This record gives sequence, C-alpha cells and structure tokens, in this order.
Amino acid sequence: MEETFVPFRGIKNDLQGRLLCYKQDWTGGLRAGFRILAPTTYIFFASAIPVISFGEQLEKNTDGVLTAVQTLASTALCGIIHSIIGGQPLLILGVAEPTVLMYTFMFNFAKDRPDLGPKLFLAWTGWVCVWTSGLLFLLAILGASSIINRFTRIAGELFGLLIAMLFMQEAIKGLIDEFRIPGRESPTLTEFQPSWRFANGMFALVLSFGLFLTALRSRKARSWRYGSGWLRGFIADYGVPLMVLVWTAVSYIPAGSIPKGIPRRLFSPNPWSPGAYENWTIIKDMLNVPVLYIIGAFIPATMIAVLYYFDHSVASQLAQQKEFNLRKPPSFHYDLLLLGFMVILCGLIGIPPANGVIPQSPMHTKSLATLKHQLLRNRLVETARKCIRENSSLGQMYESMQEAYQHMQTPLVYQEPSALCDGQGLKELKDSTIQLASSMGNMEAPIDETVFDIENEIDDLLPVEVKEQRLSNLLQAIMVGGCVAAMPFLKKIPTSVLWGYFAFMAVESLPGNQFWERILLLFTAPSRRYKVLEDYHATFVETVPFKTIAMFTIFQTAYLLVCFGITWVPIAGVLFPLMIMLLVPVRQYILPKFFKGAHLQDLDAAEYEEVPALSFNFTSQERELSRRSSFADHGEVLDGMITRGRGEIRRTCSLKMTSSTATPTKDFKSTKSFSDRVCSPRIAELRGIQSPRFGGRGPFSPRTGEARQSNLGKSGQNSDIN
Amino acid sequence: MEETFVPFRGIKNDLQGRLLCYKQDWTGGLRAGFRILAPTTYIFFASAIPVISFGEQLEKNTDGVLTAVQTLASTALCGIIHSIIGGQPLLILGVAEPTVLMYTFMFNFAKDRPDLGPKLFLAWTGWVCVWTSGLLFLLAILGASSIINRFTRIAGELFGLLIAMLFMQEAIKGLIDEFRIPGRESPTLTEFQPSWRFANGMFALVLSFGLFLTALRSRKARSWRYGSGWLRGFIADYGVPLMVLVWTAVSYIPAGSIPKGIPRRLFSPNPWSPGAYENWTIIKDMLNVPVLYIIGAFIPATMIAVLYYFDHSVASQLAQQKEFNLRKPPSFHYDLLLLGFMVILCGLIGIPPANGVIPQSPMHTKSLATLKHQLLRNRLVETARKCIRENSSLGQMYESMQEAYQHMQTPLVYQEPSALCDGQGLKELKDSTIQLASSMGNMEAPIDETVFDIENEIDDLLPVEVKEQRLSNLLQAIMVGGCVAAMPFLKKIPTSVLWGYFAFMAVESLPGNQFWERILLLFTAPSRRYKVLEDYHATFVETVPFKTIAMFTIFQTAYLLVCFGITWVPIAGVLFPLMIMLLVPVRQYILPKFFKGAHLQDLDAAEYEEVPALSFNFTSQERELSRRSSFADHGEVLDGMITRGRGEIRRTCSLKMTSSTATPTKDFKSTKSFSDRVCSPRIAELRGIQSPRFGGRGPFSPRTGEARQSNLGKSGQNSDIN
Repeated sequence: MEETFVPFRGIKNDLQGRLLCYKQDWTGGLRAGFRILAPTTYIFFASAIPVISFGEQLEKNTDGVLTAVQTLASTALCGIIHSIIGGQPLLILGVAEPTVLMYTFMFNFAKDRPDLGPKLFLAWTGWVCVWTSGLLFLLAILGASSIINRFTRIAGELFGLLIAMLFMQEAIKGLIDEFRIPGRESPTLTEFQPSWRFANGMFALVLSFGLFLTALRSRKARSWRYGSGWLRGFIADYGVPLMVLVWTAVSYIPAGSIPKGIPRRLFSPNPWSPGAYENWTIIKDMLNVPVLYIIGAFIPATMIAVLYYFDHSVASQLAQQKEFNLRKPPSFHYDLLLLGFMVILCGLIGIPPANGVIPQSPMHTKSLATLKHQLLRNRLVETARKCIRENSSLGQMYESMQEAYQHMQTPLVYQEPSALCDGQGLKELKDSTIQLASSMGNMEAPIDETVFDIENEIDDLLPVEVKEQRLSNLLQAIMVGGCVAAMPFLKKIPTSVLWGYFAFMAVESLPGNQFWERILLLFTAPSRRYKVLEDYHATFVETVPFKTIAMFTIFQTAYLLVCFGITWVPIAGVLFPLMIMLLVPVRQYILPKFFKGAHLQDLDAAEYEEVPALSFNFTSQERELSRRSSFADHGEVLDGMITRGRGEIRRTCSLKMTSSTATPTKDFKSTKSFSDRVCSPRIAELRGIQSPRFGGRGPFSPRTGEARQSNLGKSGQNSDIN
Repeated sequence: MEETFVPFRGIKNDLQGRLLCYKQDWTGGLRAGFRILAPTTYIFFASAIPVISFGEQLEKNTDGVLTAVQTLASTALCGIIHSIIGGQPLLILGVAEPTVLMYTFMFNFAKDRPDLGPKLFLAWTGWVCVWTSGLLFLLAILGASSIINRFTRIAGELFGLLIAMLFMQEAIKGLIDEFRIPGRESPTLTEFQPSWRFANGMFALVLSFGLFLTALRSRKARSWRYGSGWLRGFIADYGVPLMVLVWTAVSYIPAGSIPKGIPRRLFSPNPWSPGAYENWTIIKDMLNVPVLYIIGAFIPATMIAVLYYFDHSVASQLAQQKEFNLRKPPSFHYDLLLLGFMVILCGLIGIPPANGVIPQSPMHTKSLATLKHQLLRNRLVETARKCIRENSSLGQMYESMQEAYQHMQTPLVYQEPSALCDGQGLKELKDSTIQLASSMGNMEAPIDETVFDIENEIDDLLPVEVKEQRLSNLLQAIMVGGCVAAMPFLKKIPTSVLWGYFAFMAVESLPGNQFWERILLLFTAPSRRYKVLEDYHATFVETVPFKTIAMFTIFQTAYLLVCFGITWVPIAGVLFPLMIMLLVPVRQYILPKFFKGAHLQDLDAAEYEEVPALSFNFTSQERELSRRSSFADHGEVLDGMITRGRGEIRRTCSLKMTSSTATPTKDFKSTKSFSDRVCSPRIAELRGIQSPRFGGRGPFSPRTGEARQSNLGKSGQNSDIN
C-alpha cells in the first residue's frame, strides 16, 4: 500500500477494491454451507464473553448507568453494520478494555460535577463521541492509515502481547476477587461468610483451571489419535464453547449442598429490567449539557480518537497478514471513516462504541483459513477417490484435481497476490505427481493406492487460503445481539469460567508471535537451541547473532513492561497506545543506530527499508507459507499459527548444518549434510530450491517427506540414478 | 531359567549366581557416587508414601492396633534385610494393599471372638505368619518359582494394570472422602461444618490435581527446552519429591484465614506416643492364643502364602525384564525363602510383613537404567572431548572410548547375556565411526567437531544398561525407617497431596504396558493407526490382524474387570491373585484353541512355546533394545519405558511401506521407499540390517539420523558416489 496523503484517495481506492468482490463476499460465504458455523461460533464466544465481562466491569464503575446490555448492544450493532457495509469483513468489532477504562475515567469526572452528574453523563459522552468521530473522519480523509505500514512487527507484536497480558491480568484479578466480597453485594449474606468465601474461591480455581486446560486441549483435537475424525473435527471446532457448557454444568453439581450464590455467576440486569434501557433516549438531553462541557469533551475525544485509530488499524492489519495469502484488498481508510460513523451513532444512543479488537480479529481469519483448508481438502480427496475408482491415470487425476481446485478459487479481483497464489496453487500436487510418475514409470499407469495414499498426502498439497466472506462476521454479530435476549441463560455461566476463558484467550494469542518466540529463546538452554532450529523458526534465528537477538528482545520487553505499567496509571492509562505509536519513530530513527540494518531487517522487517533485492523474500515467503499449510494435518498447523508479520521468510535448517561444507558423499550420509546444502539460503536461492521443512513429526510427516523430495531434486544430480 | 523341581536346587543355583557378584553389588553402588541419590529418593517416596497411607487405612480398620508406624517399620526392616542378604537387589519390598486387606479381614474376625479379641489379635496374626512362612519355605524349597516363566506377558501386564487401577481407586476414594467427615473425628469441629467441608474438598481437588499434573510434567523435564541441562536433570530426578514439598507449602498459604483442620493432613501417632509400640512384645502372648485358633490360623495363612508367592515373584519378574539387559542372575527361589524368614520375623514382633511391590520395583530398575545411562554418557563424552583436544584421529578416539566403556562394565559373572551385551556394547559407536571415516576419507584424519558432535550424538551410541547394585535399595529402606522418626514432619503433608501422588503412580506405571497400549489401539481412529506404526510399536501391530488384536484385548479386559470386581468382595477379595494365576492354564491350554499360534506368540510370547527359530527374536531384540536407548536423549526414552515382556522384537516401519517395492530411484525419493527396504523385516534379516527407528522427533533426532545412516549403507550401493 503506497503512502498517499491526498484527501479521499485512500478511501476511493479502498471502495473500488472492495466493491469488486462485494458480491463474492456473500456468495462465497453461503457456498461454505453449514460448515461456516464452526468459525462463527468460535468467534462469537471469543467476542461475546469478554464483552459481557467488560460490561460487568463497566457497571461496577458507572454505578449501573452502563451494563453488559449496552456493551453487547454496541458490539452487535457495530458488528452488523461493519459486516455489511464495512471494508474488511475479517475484522471483528467489539467494546474493548480501553473503551471501558475511558468511560470509567469520564464517569468519575462527570459524577462529581453538580451541573453534569450521572444524570447527564451519557449525554456528555454523546458529545465526546461527536468530537471523536469528527477527528476520525479527518484522519480517514487525510489518509492517516497509509502510515499503517510503519507499524512494523515490533509494534504490532508488542501490542498483541500487551493485550494478552491485560487479558491474563483480568483472569488473575478475577480469580483473586472470587475469594473476596464483591463490592455491590451485602457482606451479610451466607455465601460471604469466611468459610463459604474460601469455598467459593477454591471452587473458582477448579472451574477456571478446568476450563483453561480443557479448552486448550480441545483446540488441538484434530491431531488427537483417538476418536473418529468426525468427532475430533467437531471438538476442535466447537470444543471451546462446549467446554464452557461442560464447566457450567459442573458448577451445578454441588448445587444441593451449597448456598445459591456459590459459585458466583455472571451478573447483569435483563434488558427488560428498569434502568437497562434509559440510555437509548439520551439524545434529547444532549442540549442540556453546559456549553463548557461540550467544548471540554474535545479533550477525551482526542484520546479516544488516537486510541481507536491505532486499535482499529492494528487489528485490521493483524487480521490480514501476508501469510494468510488473502486475495481481496484491505481497506484501512474506508473502515476508519466507517468507524467514525459508528462512533457517532453509538454516542447518540448512549452506548459505548465498539472498535476492531485483538486477538479476536486474527483468531477469526485463522479459523477461516482452517475452514477453507477443510473445504479444499474434502473436495480434492473426493475428486481423487473418483479418479482412483475409475482407475484413471495419474495424469488424468492431476488434471481433474487441478480443475476442481481452480473451481474452488475466488474470482481474481485483485491482481498481484492472487496471480502469485494461483501460480503455485497446487504446485505441491504437481511435484508429487511428477515424482510418483517417475517412480511408477509413466504418467499413464493407473494409480496404485498403496503408493499414493491421497487421504494422508492431500494435506501436503494445499496452500494456506482463507475463506474471505462476510457471513461469519454478520452471523457472530447477530448472535452477540441475541445474547441481550439470552441474558437469563448467560447468567448461568460462573464468573470463574469467564476468568479461565480470559486466560485461554491470552494463551491462544501467543503462538506465532515472534516477540514471544524470542523471549522463549532467551530462556532456551544453549544446548537445546538446535531444537529451535529443527522446528519452524524465523530467519533471524540463523542470521542474527544470539547476543543481538537478546539485546533487541530485552529492549522490547522493557518497552512492553513500561507500556504495561502505564495502563495502571489512573487517567493517562488509556493512552498506552501512544507509547506504542512512539515505537514507530523509535524503530525508524533510533534503533538503526544500535542494530545492523541487516539484523534489524530480519528481526523486524519494515517495508520502507526494504531494498529490491529483498523482494525475493516475498515470493519465497508466499511459496514458503503456502507450503507451510502442507503440514496442516487437517489444519493442525493452522491451529498453531496466528500473527506473523510481513516480509518474513522462514527456514528450518540449523546453523550447525550450514557450517559444514557439502560433498556429494555426505549428501547421502545424514540429513544434516543434505539439508545443509538445500537449506543454506544462498544455495537455495541460486537453485531456486525452497528450503525444506523439518518438524517435530518424524520423517513420515509431510514436512520431511517434503524435505526428502527437495533432496531428491539434488541427489539426482549427484548420483547417476536418473 | 529351566524348570527344576528338585528340592533346594533352585535355591542353590540362585545363591551361587548371586554370590559371584555380591561384592560388585556394593562396589558398583559406591562407584556411582552421590548420583545414586536420585533413584534412591525417587523410590523412597514411591514406597514410603503408599506405605504411610496404607498404615492410615490399617489404623482405621484395626481401631488403632496397627498404625503407619508399624507399616513403615516393617517396610524398612524387610527392605534393609532384603537389600543386604536378598538375592535380587532391584526388588523393592513394602507393605502392600493386599496385606492391609488381609489384616483387616483377620481383625474383623478376631475382634468379635471373646477368647481372642483385639487384645490377642496380634498374637494370633503371629501364628498366621508362622504358618505362612512355613508354606513359603515349602514353595521355595520345592522350586515353585520355576513356573514363573509360565506367567506370560498376559498375566504380568494384567496384574500391573490391576494394581494401577487399585491405586487410582485409592486416589478417587480419597478425594471423595475429603468432602466427607472422617470416621475417627467428632463431627462437631468447625472444620466439619458443611461450608468448611466443601471448602476442604475443593482445596483437596486443587492440591491433588496440582501435584498430579506437575509431577507428571517434572518427570519429563529432561526433554524440556528451557532451563539449563543441570536444572532439567535435577527436576527430572527429584521433581516428584520436590512437587510434594511445593504443594505441601501451597497448602499452608491460606493457613491464616481457615481453621487448623483444613486441608486435612496425614494422621498418624508418633512412635513415642502410647499404643504405637505395644506390638513389639506380642511374642509373649502367643502361647495364650487358644490352640483351636492356632490351628485355624492355617486358613488365612494359605491365602497370604499364595498372595505373597505371586506378588513377590511377579514383582521380581517385572523388575528384571529382558529389555533392561541385566547382567546379573535372578534369584526367585532364594528370595522366596528369604521372604519366608522375614514373614515369621514380622509376625513375631507383631508388624504386618512386607513383600515385593509393584509398580515400585520396575520403577526402581528403570531409574537405575537412567542413572547408568548418564554415568556412561558423561564418561564417554569426557573421553571423546579429551581425544578431540589432543586432536587424535577417529580411530584413536574409537579405541579410547571403547576402552572407557569396557572399564565401566561390571565384571562378567553371568555368561550368556553379558557376552551378548558385550558383543554389541558400542556397536553403534563403531558403525557411526566407520561411516564418519568413510565420509572423511580415512580413519587417520583428525575429528572435525562440526561433523561429529559428540554431545548430541553420544546418546545414539549407548545401550540400555542398569546400574545393578544394593546401595539404592538399602538407602531407601533406611530412609523409610527414618520416616518413623520423621513422623512429625510427614504429618504436615496434606492427604490430598497423597491422593494426587497415588494417581501419579498409577499413570506412571502405564507406558510400556502392551496390554494398555492395545486398549488404546482399540480407541485409535482407523485413519490414525498409521501413526502407531510410525512410532515405536510392538510386532503384533503389524503381524496380527486388527480383529484378532481386538478380540484378544477385549478378552483380557473382561478378565481384568472380573479381577477388579473380585477385589470388592469382602473376604475372598484378597484372593484376586488366584484369578490371575488361573490365567496361566487359561493361556496355556484354552487361548491356543481360539487364537493362531503365531498371533498368540506375537501378542503374548511364552518361552515354553518358543521354537528355536524364534531365538532370533532374542538376539535381535537385545540389539533392538540396546539400541532403543539410542533415542534416549539424556535418558528421555528410558523415562518413558517401564514394563515390557520377554521375547518381544519391536519394529518401526509401517505396513504401508513394506507394501511397496523398492527401486534404486525411490531409494532417494521418500523415506517410505528406503525405510521400506530397510524395514521389511525379511530383507533386514537377510542383510543383517537392523530396522531403523523413526519417532516423533524429526529427522535430526538420533532416531532418524540413524535411519539416514542405514540408508547411506545402501544408497552407497545404488549411486556411484563411493
């Protein structure tokens, strides 16, 4: 995306790009059939549960002026609007923690003012929203989103980790409070006797850890060895909501022997109970707000505007990363404009506005990638089966599979990336077919199932692709809206289960975050670092000296802790995104003074620094990544991948290997030697061989099968076999 | 072991065999230095904790006549005697559940008899022990232990699993009781108010699951990626006791806010408190027992004799399995005799006798194998380092390592196995050296560390060997004795931690139990069975049709459940070993009617059925097994292996592979093809190639490095490289 500051141009481009694929956004979603429900429910829970507990928090802080009803309503409303007329349907909207903090601060300010007070609080926030949206319009029109490219991995990942920390903090705080008497309750109740409080706390520990551990497990269900494939798939798709149900059920087991208040459950007024809907009509009070305050509203407005601009952009960015091989264009400018409209709308009906949320947005894209993988998989397996039944030749099979694959592609509305993806869509399949052919003599021989076991091999052959559509987003938003009505049922969920879920979300967002991986690397025993090299790992592990990595990571960690510390500051707390924005100049002007350019490029690739030569990275990255999916055993790997940044090529051979030189003999002696020749990036580049991938799954896993293939490529040259 | 029923011959042979290596039993142990403490503490906890809680159980059942003090005393006393003059120092003795059940039953019988009553109970049990020991003498002298060979895998593993179930049952029962009011306490105490009882139960859940999960984790510490090697080793060695400490500490965190009785802790009188030592003098009461009862004592005596004969023999058998490559002879007959003496001794001082226990005994051997592996490892690495420093040639290094290895061998007192082990002690090293040499041109070239990384490769080169000595057994027995004095400290351990530990022991005993593995196989999705084939797996997986496996396993499971059911029968319960003994004739005469001989041989190899041809299995099994240790990354694998039976060769290539034929080209195309050539047992046999091992660790892991090497062997032939 070029940096354009010409008014409206950004928005115009975005609209043009998205309109082209608007129809397909819907048809594509519908074509997925009921399977779309898997990502939908997954995201629904991921966005509803935090919103509800933020609502509870808000209620405590605003003496019940705002409740979960309002936060849910706002999330649903904005979600529906965005999913229908929004630019980036992968982006998930919701009322986020910063908004809650902001509103709390504003309430504390307002309630003591005689001429404002709780009565006019919402009216005043209405004005704040008006200002905010104004600022957002300005930013959108002037193309402020162009500089999104300047938010490099360092900023994005730091923000991601910070959010994870905040979620974990929520979980821990919540668990500790389970041992305390909640503010709003009267301490005279039986369930607040020391004994019952302690019991409640312990029960909470059991429930939250139960949910946390089982939810994490269930996400990995696809790779389980037991149970039928259908069951495993179902658990992996719906495991988390399922676990919420299970543990809620468990919380009712001792119901007989304990007072009603234990364990504590979600607290929120029903939408039809008084006080829960006053907010809708605040617009008529807005003119009663003293002029001074109307003007003064500009101050918080700036803060919120900055906050939303950053939050929204980064969320969109993380939801549309390169490794997802998206085919449809982004739309930062237009979405920011739309956000402005939604903010003013929310302001006028007196509900806290929603904005793009992390980690839900990347989680959404990821779950859609898994979905697409399964759809492709089923279709191709079916095709191959058919061919084998009609025992047609390899050649024919390849043809028909290629055809089926093309048939499932979204129309190529957006040239560059799609062309690229397309270029190597079934490259894998092609390669393996050719190899098979060579082993079987000719392309005409009928396929021998013992040799070509499609069921197990298909997963090697599929690139990462995402089912880009608006349906899942729309549905989840509607379901969130449904929660308002379903409040009586939601109230059955114990709060402790909520805390467990928060911890789960925090952990779910870690894998794939290179910052996190680097932190882990610091704690990895030197004698075990070679293990990192055997697995998937980012370039820097090989190209950047450990000391530099350590320095960089320590700096980043310190910075993270500062940001985290700031969130504790009573008022300025909400401005922590400013700190992260500050990283942009720091990264651009200060870091280069301390780190070698090449190292920086590997640790934190920034497009504005990239020299043409580096463009190799992109293509090979695309290839690389599309092939990463190969390991996806029914999408197992996708389950493991969330946020990865731009311009990142990943290799999998170790330093030790690249160190020793390669001789034909050794080419057969040990993986080390041949992987060394394949891996050593220079050679790989020259020969245009993609580095093989070795992983923790043993040689029969697609990864290493793969590796063997690329090895074949060269062993052929060195031995007189072919 | 040939079946000899000539009186005393068995005992004579045993004594001869063991006397030869008696001195070495001590010197060997001392040479290990302080490292011997790792297995010692590991086993100490594994035997002390159950004994204590059995003691508690006994106290409840015998109205405090017998307490943990007595069970500990007996365990320590017998342990010390056995470790010094016993035949099989790997065998761990302890007061086991069956003994407790037996004593409970006898007490219930005695207490209501006016002319016996609790007063004379111990005196009467004294007589029971006299009879029991008499019977044991008889069995020992007549060489009853010879038929131990007839206890095939089916019996041994069924028993192992049954014990695991009983342990798990204890754990669950215990946890449930945490919610109830313990019998001996007055229900008026505060901690037994419903609220506190519930709190206590929940706290117990937290503590026991905490211990259970962390303990399981800590055992795997060696394969962790984080922390220094030293730390990882330490955690793996001492993790379990460490966790007991940690969770005991945790149990004190809320101490301030809750009544003293929560969580419940070990309950046992101090040895110096009245009533805890009356038993020592019961011998003088023995003549006061009415003659009728003295004679009647013969009936329970027979039961106990049968029980002990079986328990003791199976425990010794499981502790001395083939895969441990033991070099010292077993001694079933003599140990049975000694058990007789110990029983009478215990009887006369009024404490319940101890006998060989499962799973502690195999756990003991396993931990000693890990120890030996580490000792060998350090020694060889050091030697190799020295050579590299003096940059001597490969040839020299091999020489000196071979030498160092020999130097660490125990004197070969027992011919057959030792000769065998010795034959291929460092075979691995030899092979890899030769390969290296071939790759480097000549044996004289100095070693290039980049090529030969001893630190990472040494683990491939070591066979499984066990540090056979008496020290660890003696020390742990003494420590158990120490517990009697340390009672005040032990009482700080929460009972809930105990239940967690029971569950941990149950789970620890599962891996390697083929019966268990087959049960899992039944639940493995057909589409995932290939994964089983990729890992280590027993022969039957490939050679026996799934349906047969299923039938066999279901039969065995049904049998297991019957045995388990019997343990619930009030009196006859203690005779469940009879049921298992019944398996011997069932296996020998009935099963062959339903299953093919070959299948039966693979599912449950019985020596008495083995035809000469099968002897191949042994050697190749030894080789196989000695090489299994190769994967031991600092003994990781050893951590994973416990009970495997006799005459079992394990392969690791899948059916799918063996199905396709091999062509030179394919030899380089995919693992499948070359593994297929190497694996296909027939070919392997012909060429004398050992099947390569593939595992879940990716190509750089020793396993597949290995695989690649054996591939080299042949790829060399097919390509014109060398």
